[in-house]
Amino acid sequence: MPTQKDEVYGDHISHQFNEELAELKTEFLKMGGLVEQQLMDSIQALIENDGQLADDVRGRDKVVDKMEIAIDEEATKVIARRQPTARDLRLVVSVIKMVADLERVGDESKKIAKFAMGLSQEGQAPRGYVEARHIGNHVASMLHDALDAFARLDSEQALRVMKEDKRVDEEYQAATRTLLTFMMEDSRNISRCMSVMWVLRALERVGDHACNIAENVIFMVKGEDVRHASMERAEEVVSR
Amino acid sequence: MPTQKDEVYGDHISHQFNEELAELKTEFLKMGGLVEQQLMDSIQALIENDGQLADDVRGRDKVVDKMEIAIDEEATKVIARRQPTARDLRLVVSVIKMVADLERVGDESKKIAKFAMGLSQEGQAPRGYVEARHIGNHVASMLHDALDAFARLDSEQALRVMKEDKRVDEEYQAATRTLLTFMMEDSRNISRCMSVMWVLRALERVGDHACNIAENVIFMVKGEDVRHASMERAEEVVSR
Repeated sequence: MPTQKDEVYGDHISHQFNEELAELKTEFLKMGGLVEQQLMDSIQALIENDGQLADDVRGRDKVVDKMEIAIDEEATKVIARRQPTARDLRLVVSVIKMVADLERVGDESKKIAKFAMGLSQEGQAPRGYVEARHIGNHVASMLHDALDAFARLDSEQALRVMKEDKRVDEEYQAATRTLLTFMMEDSRNISRCMSVMWVLRALERVGDHACNIAENVIFMVKGEDVRHASMERAEEVVSR
Repeated sequence: MPTQKDEVYGDHISHQFNEELAELKTEFLKMGGLVEQQLMDSIQALIENDGQLADDVRGRDKVVDKMEIAIDEEATKVIARRQPTARDLRLVVSVIKMVADLERVGDESKKIAKFAMGLSQEGQAPRGYVEARHIGNHVASMLHDALDAFARLDSEQALRVMKEDKRVDEEYQAATRTLLTFMMEDSRNISRCMSVMWVLRALERVGDHACNIAENVIFMVKGEDVRHASMERAEEVVSR
């Protein structure tokens, strides 16, 4: 959709502007890919007691942080230079918001890696790892699908991601109950189970961030903010 | 600071624009005030076993959510209509980011209220409440100071808020260790202590959000992004 500015200044500027928007999208998706990798590596480090991989994740978080700042800066420059309106403006504003979600997923991955390192040093029988792997895979696929929905501006796929969040919450509740039982059975389990609890909590938060990204995709495509709305309302917005 | 547009269109537009920016600030601070109240009420509900107050907090969260959407919409409209640049643009973009932090503080308050309700029904001796009250007061004053720094565009006060975050993290670590000890002493404590753990975690996150707001204030005033920078770098930026 052309902006006012494009209409005024004609094709050449419009072409440059489109390239800048495409570049912003590309950078965002690059950051998304890195964060996805961070998440998957942190889960693998936990499950496989891989202290080295956990250490790698922690080290790479700085790259994620730098990308956040660079994309934010670029998005703000695009606003100042191109003065986008309507759909283009929604895209740029959404990128600014979604970058914060990606950075948080990076942080949660770093946190998971930290607990993975602690747990790998203890070297005892894992408790709650089945649950952590299951929820981890679930939220990793939500994040992947949310980023894919953004890449293709596919609001229906974004809606599917939003629907998954409720299932993740249920899985998370069930997993924390299981861990609570382990803790009550034997107080020697408490410290380790607490670490796994924090991992599960971090994973549950990743699901929330994937959901936020999905909500932004719907906002970009449909122009309506579906945050805090009912699932029925979100369905209505997407189907129109 | 006048924007390019103001310079071109003269005083009248500039005056309207300034009013719109002032209105955006006012609405943001109104949301901030409500969120502060939500946080303090949730802590009070916990400490005083006040189930009714906890219920009020949960009910009022919808108001916070609506304010988030309204302010976001207004900020996006200001960009489209006024095409701000430089310092004005930084203000608007920062408001969009900080509104997300305020909404999260609202969510954490709702979560604390939920645990307060559960704990008030159990009616047993509180464990970790001293710590929760202490950290709660600490992060509430950080949030207050961060909002105040925004209201007065005071980057030095924002820097002080950033410095507090480290102390909160230390208090949080100490408190979780204390709770872990209670859990190990007697397995009947585990379930209740877990609830208090989640409360402490929520409070620690509030400190992070106050810190994010403070970082945005420095960005607005100084034009440099100090997220992920060292404290020394942040001090340099603020002192220049």
